[in-house]
Amino acid sequence: MDVQDSRIWTAALIVIGDEILSGRTQDKNIAQVAQWLNGQGIRLAEVRVVPDVEQRIVDAVTALRGQVDYLFTTGGIGPTHDDITIDAIAAAMGVPVVVHPQARQILEGYYAARGGVNEARLRMARVPEGAELIPNAASGAPGVRLANIFILAGVPSIAARMLEALDGALEGGRPVVSATVTAHAAESEVAELLRQVQDDHAGVSIGSYPFFMDGRGGAEFVIRSEDEALVERCAAALRERLLAHGIEPAPPR
Amino acid sequence: MDVQDSRIWTAALIVIGDEILSGRTQDKNIAQVAQWLNGQGIRLAEVRVVPDVEQRIVDAVTALRGQVDYLFTTGGIGPTHDDITIDAIAAAMGVPVVVHPQARQILEGYYAARGGVNEARLRMARVPEGAELIPNAASGAPGVRLANIFILAGVPSIAARMLEALDGALEGGRPVVSATVTAHAAESEVAELLRQVQDDHAGVSIGSYPFFMDGRGGAEFVIRSEDEALVERCAAALRERLLAHGIEPAPPR
Repeated sequence: MDVQDSRIWTAALIVIGDEILSGRTQDKNIAQVAQWLNGQGIRLAEVRVVPDVEQRIVDAVTALRGQVDYLFTTGGIGPTHDDITIDAIAAAMGVPVVVHPQARQILEGYYAARGGVNEARLRMARVPEGAELIPNAASGAPGVRLANIFILAGVPSIAARMLEALDGALEGGRPVVSATVTAHAAESEVAELLRQVQDDHAGVSIGSYPFFMDGRGGAEFVIRSEDEALVERCAAALRERLLAHGIEPAPPR
Repeated sequence: MDVQDSRIWTAALIVIGDEILSGRTQDKNIAQVAQWLNGQGIRLAEVRVVPDVEQRIVDAVTALRGQVDYLFTTGGIGPTHDDITIDAIAAAMGVPVVVHPQARQILEGYYAARGGVNEARLRMARVPEGAELIPNAASGAPGVRLANIFILAGVPSIAARMLEALDGALEGGRPVVSATVTAHAAESEVAELLRQVQDDHAGVSIGSYPFFMDGRGGAEFVIRSEDEALVERCAAALRERLLAHGIEPAPPR
């Protein structure tokens, strides 16, 4: 393994929106962005959910952008008064907000058959000065990239199209692979065994996630590493140790 | 309105767990805690999701606990090696970890008919010194309260029982109430109208949330305030303005 191989690439995500903090909307972007990043060989290191308040967004951007390779945001880039992400990120980066000519063109094309652009729609062509666009096949209005900051839509289906457009575009390491061993055992019965198996396989992390279903409890043990062969060896060892302990591994849920 | 009435109570939530950051598990605790807090008249001001790494938990606790009235955490209080929340919060607060006698008793009772307590199960009786317990009718192992920090389970159904146990126990203000007006209109058509209605009703915030469903777009406009009568007046005014604009409000989704 050379140095390049062992470099760990990290990202943070800021989810922007009162609707998440009020509990009105169940967030789906955390899992979506996390899974996409994993596929790019980039680890999601932290998420913050902040309200539609400019200073709160500025604070989160300022705190996180230097700590990670890539900073993603979701939410707050639509046409209405509560969409303030562009302004907040421009403020955090100390640049003015400008209208991006290509974004304007995209919106004019998209809205040509939908009543034309108006002042609200043109808001979606505003970007921090120096930004590039992230194409969005779903609804015209593009995402925005400024330096290591990727500004995505809040609607999960639209954010998904922007992530697609970024597929393979970011430098990353090896994706983390995982294997799951499921057992109808209380995790408290096997805690010591798990710790031993993890210690025997340097480089893996084993997470233990209890579940209760149809009146029956159990746990999923998720083995994670960037080394696929190591994950397989560790999963086999765990199954063997569980069996030796009288616990039959169960089919995946 | 007296001073007591206008005091705003705030909370923050730290979601602890690699499984959320890897995208393996779809978080449900953010929405659940947010909705519960709203019912208590407490506003969720920020959420952070951090990995199962002690220093990262310590940093988040240290950053947030002084900024809000109440700090909640979910995750990392089970019996396995990756459950380090208690240790991290004790470290953040500068107190040792001790076995809580009542928690030990609860666990001994719960596990009497389930194979007895073992070292792993006793881990769940460990608390930061000075902590109180939060009862958990679902699985025995209690949640933990230390000062303004509330340490809940990560399994959503168990966290729910701990929240139930806290119902009405925390001082809060008036709950935020909301009304939703739905319309099959592009939010970019009505952005200016929305801003005007919000400006006409000081004390409300209006969020605009687009949706796409069955090939048809629209938006939900959510009006929020602690003053129910004001919310109703504002919703009526918004419906009227939409109608005057040729837009028939649609049934709720």
